[in-house]
Amino acid sequence: MNNTRVILKQRAEGIPREQDFELLHAPAARPGAGELLCETRYLSLDPYLRGQISGRHISGAVNVGELMGGEAVSRVIESRADGFEQGDIIAAHSGWQSHPVVQAATARKLNPALGPLSTLLGILGMPGLTAYAGMTRLADLQAGDTVVVSAASGPVGSMVGQIAKRHGCRSVGIAGSEEKCRWTVAQAGFEHCINYKTETLRDGLKRACPDGINVYFDNVGGDTLQACMEQLALGARVILCGLMAQYNTDDIPPGPNPGLIIRARATVRGLVVYDHEDLRPEFEQQVSHWLQQGQLSYKEDLAEGLQGAPGLFCRLMRGENFGKAIVRVAE
Amino acid sequence: MNNTRVILKQRAEGIPREQDFELLHAPAARPGAGELLCETRYLSLDPYLRGQISGRHISGAVNVGELMGGEAVSRVIESRADGFEQGDIIAAHSGWQSHPVVQAATARKLNPALGPLSTLLGILGMPGLTAYAGMTRLADLQAGDTVVVSAASGPVGSMVGQIAKRHGCRSVGIAGSEEKCRWTVAQAGFEHCINYKTETLRDGLKRACPDGINVYFDNVGGDTLQACMEQLALGARVILCGLMAQYNTDDIPPGPNPGLIIRARATVRGLVVYDHEDLRPEFEQQVSHWLQQGQLSYKEDLAEGLQGAPGLFCRLMRGENFGKAIVRVAE
Repeated sequence: MNNTRVILKQRAEGIPREQDFELLHAPAARPGAGELLCETRYLSLDPYLRGQISGRHISGAVNVGELMGGEAVSRVIESRADGFEQGDIIAAHSGWQSHPVVQAATARKLNPALGPLSTLLGILGMPGLTAYAGMTRLADLQAGDTVVVSAASGPVGSMVGQIAKRHGCRSVGIAGSEEKCRWTVAQAGFEHCINYKTETLRDGLKRACPDGINVYFDNVGGDTLQACMEQLALGARVILCGLMAQYNTDDIPPGPNPGLIIRARATVRGLVVYDHEDLRPEFEQQVSHWLQQGQLSYKEDLAEGLQGAPGLFCRLMRGENFGKAIVRVAE
Repeated sequence: MNNTRVILKQRAEGIPREQDFELLHAPAARPGAGELLCETRYLSLDPYLRGQISGRHISGAVNVGELMGGEAVSRVIESRADGFEQGDIIAAHSGWQSHPVVQAATARKLNPALGPLSTLLGILGMPGLTAYAGMTRLADLQAGDTVVVSAASGPVGSMVGQIAKRHGCRSVGIAGSEEKCRWTVAQAGFEHCINYKTETLRDGLKRACPDGINVYFDNVGGDTLQACMEQLALGARVILCGLMAQYNTDDIPPGPNPGLIIRARATVRGLVVYDHEDLRPEFEQQVSHWLQQGQLSYKEDLAEGLQGAPGLFCRLMRGENFGKAIVRVAE
């Protein structure tokens, strides 16, 4: 049995290019005691992987010549670990490969009844949990709040807005195309979505949030964060979650002036999803229920096969994806 | 009866100079209905007044030709308002003048038994309440926390450290001279005080806070805030209170990168003392008790007479004061 792998061929400067990656074929490894041989079904591509290439993400680094990282949903084809059987569906950070050998201790058994397998990497997976933890634990949501989220058509952003709506809040998205904005309003039910490419964000925010922003969930940093911080309402809460604006640079750019936080008496919190693993059972039950009731919209941007992973990842890092970036590795 | 006033003669660029102010003498006004004619005893000089000169402080603006603002403790010499009598001691934002006429509705009657009159502008006044509100409402103090505060020998900073100590925390100060650092440790009981003029703040923080900073109370902004944000422990709380580093500039400089907040899962809050007026009775009772038990240290930097106000204010804005800047206007 062959294992197809994608390694980092050269370290990207700026936005990654397809030629930074290389597809390799080799016999699959044999599982040792406590290990699982798996067949990858779906692989998640997420912006934090860019930070791994730069060696500055919390979750670790990927060096030249090494396997690209990332979470995948896989089927166990041979188990040498207690508690796992052939046919089990698991999630693991097994990276860009078709037949990984996974330490059972690092695998999480999934319940395929929760939703379609690919959603276990999206609204029912890490991005969904990120949004859920931010909204239920950090945002101190109040009915009537105006909640703004950047990257609004992405898996985190679209869930943030939909959860906010369920709490009686007004959801305002920020996205980078008319198509994304249309989907965010028409499908995900946001009140507004500002296309920052056709109007300045400051103008859009003033129009969509005439009484200021009560909650801002930031997936971006940079100028987007600055513009939102300027429009905070008194007592606003800001959740810092992603830094898309700086993942492609080696610089650490400065942030907004602290006077903006003082002026709004704002509370600004950093969110790292790994801290909220204990919330996962509640989150899965709740989101699966909403999904099965047809009350949640989500959008996926699928690539076919591992050979499609570099291209989709590069589109993701250019902000050209539309929806959760997922590679279908095997049916 | 003459009223001596200090007006803004020209708008300062950068650090204010004594010639930016002018001393004028004119007959005192007569109090109308609902007003009090007062004799100023002590006048408080605070960094926020620099923001009023720039026209960008929450509390209002001072234009050229206008009376300089500021809180004072005064004695009522003629009352035309119910509830106030000749001889009452009041606090009011009556500014740099010797015989103000004050709207009774804006005056707060003081209890001189709480402590020496001048402390009603310092540890028992606005700076003390600022520290008390920040520490008891926003800092979520836990015994064992390492609490860092900038401008540590000032009225806010020295109270922050002393309140933290009473909660079982380690207090670490940041100040700009050996004399200030010595006082902060020997008199106010801080564990450490870093002199940022003789050692880089980053090195000092690493040495004084080997396990990181749990709570940072910022009176300064700028490079000091940046250095402290780089040393936050997981779950740190940051209270943004003052912006000394930018009061003397017309620029709005950027702040720390948001990634520092995410990495530490920090909570950053803006503090404006006016929001915490409801805490004042508890604060006065508590701090007065500590003071009368001899359990609090404080330092005052006194100027004699209104003619001394411009010089002391300029020293304050150069960071050359040592302790709470107060003008003794009359005994």
